[in-house]
Amino acid sequence: MLLGKVSGTVVSTRKEHLLDGLTLLLIEHCLPNGKGQGTFLVATDSVSAGIGEIVLYTTGSSARQTELTTGKPIDATVMAIVDSIDMGGSTEYLKDS
Amino acid sequence: MLLGKVSGTVVSTRKEHLLDGLTLLLIEHCLPNGKGQGTFLVATDSVSAGIGEIVLYTTGSSARQTELTTGKPIDATVMAIVDSIDMGGSTEYLKDS
Amino acid sequence: MLLGKVSGTVVSTRKEHLLDGLTLLLIEHCLPNGKGQGTFLVATDSVSAGIGEIVLYTTGSSARQTELTTGKPIDATVMAIVDSIDMGGSTEYLKDS
Amino acid sequence: MLLGKVSGTVVSTRKEHLLDGLTLLLIEHCLPNGKGQGTFLVATDSVSAGIGEIVLYTTGSSARQTELTTGKPIDATVMAIVDSIDMGGSTEYLKDS
Amino acid sequence: MLLGKVSGTVVSTRKEHLLDGLTLLLIEHCLPNGKGQGTFLVATDSVSAGIGEIVLYTTGSSARQTELTTGKPIDATVMAIVDSIDMGGSTEYLKDS
Repeated sequence: MLLGKVSGTVVSTRKEHLLDGLTLLLIEHCLPNGKGQGTFLVATDSVSAGIGEIVLYTTGSSARQTELTTGKPIDATVMAIVDSIDMGGSTEYLKDS
Repeated sequence: MLLGKVSGTVVSTRKEHLLDGLTLLLIEHCLPNGKGQGTFLVATDSVSAGIGEIVLYTTGSSARQTELTTGKPIDATVMAIVDSIDMGGSTEYLKDS
Repeated sequence: MLLGKVSGTVVSTRKEHLLDGLTLLLIEHCLPNGKGQGTFLVATDSVSAGIGEIVLYTTGSSARQTELTTGKPIDATVMAIVDSIDMGGSTEYLKDS
Repeated sequence: MLLGKVSGTVVSTRKEHLLDGLTLLLIEHCLPNGKGQGTFLVATDSVSAGIGEIVLYTTGSSARQTELTTGKPIDATVMAIVDSIDMGGSTEYLKDS
Repeated sequence: MLLGKVSGTVVSTRKEHLLDGLTLLLIEHCLPNGKGQGTFLVATDSVSAGIGEIVLYTTGSSARQTELTTGKPIDATVMAIVDSIDMGGSTEYLKDS
């Protein structure tokens, strides 16, 4: 999985019907400290992530291994909202509570 | 999925027969504001996208999870035409209507 | 699919037997105008492409979705020889005829 | 597989239920001598790797080919803890014992 | 497939049991002339490649399409030892015999 920051949403009315009803989140790649890297992808979401949250997303065929995405033309799915990241014994990232 | 701008079309008469009848769109990678990045791929199209439109495309085995592409040697399919992209509460991209 | 220029061939006598009889083309990544980018991959070929031709190749599991490649340990297959590429209304690439 | 150094752990309480009970390790890409490269991914773990260890991880659908990960939305799994790496007849990396 | 140079071996005693008995080769990405690029991966081997040889390796699910690797958590397999590479009519690489 990769770390990303939820930075926005994408709206599309004309789309493959298998995408109907799926959320399309704009995700910015980020470092373990949450710093955005200026590159982006669009993922669907199985955990109701919100703007600004640091998340883990899965890509490729693995992104279809959920109830929500099975059999759908999805190659990136947010799988977890990150609470904290520990590196070398110290807290690198801690979600605002 | 990734964001791209439809920048052209590719014509091929000598091709694997499983590609017969499929549109081949030239897509330029782009940022959420629609700015092209100078790198390209070729995708088939399940939504009749037009030149200049910002689209979402799916790659890998996920690109074959549509009626149009199932069982075909396709690794990139345009799945949605983007209407708008919202980032941090403001509109980053809005399609000309 | 990605655009590449057929730049050579690879010869191997000691190989996985499932590759026996398959052509191994050296492909250089290229821009839509045909300019090579200095990076390379090796693909098998379902369309008898020749040296110097601009082609489309498919990667990953999608490269195995042809009669020639099904069930084989192949992750890149040339699927089409490009005749022309149109960008923004003008011809970016036109094959010598 | 790719070489990485286990540099931390990721905690998430709100996640896809298929990830429940799986370890989430923060991995830094590294060279054969163990030097970190400043880029990161998150992998689950089938070998109980510890912080600071150099490991091999598998990505994509191959990451799901273990008892632990089959059918789960996982695209990266640590598969081995590296004891030593030999390059050109000399030891490039040797695990502290 | 991609071109690589066999530059070493990786030893691991604590690993996923499905990897037992498989060779783990350290491979350096290389150009068609055999020049190493300073980036590395680890692949298993279906052709008994030796140190210093230029090889072709397959990645992703395609790396599992051999008798040796089927059903195993392997995402890179050496499939061929390169004898020679021809570019533009001249020999770019020729294996020492």
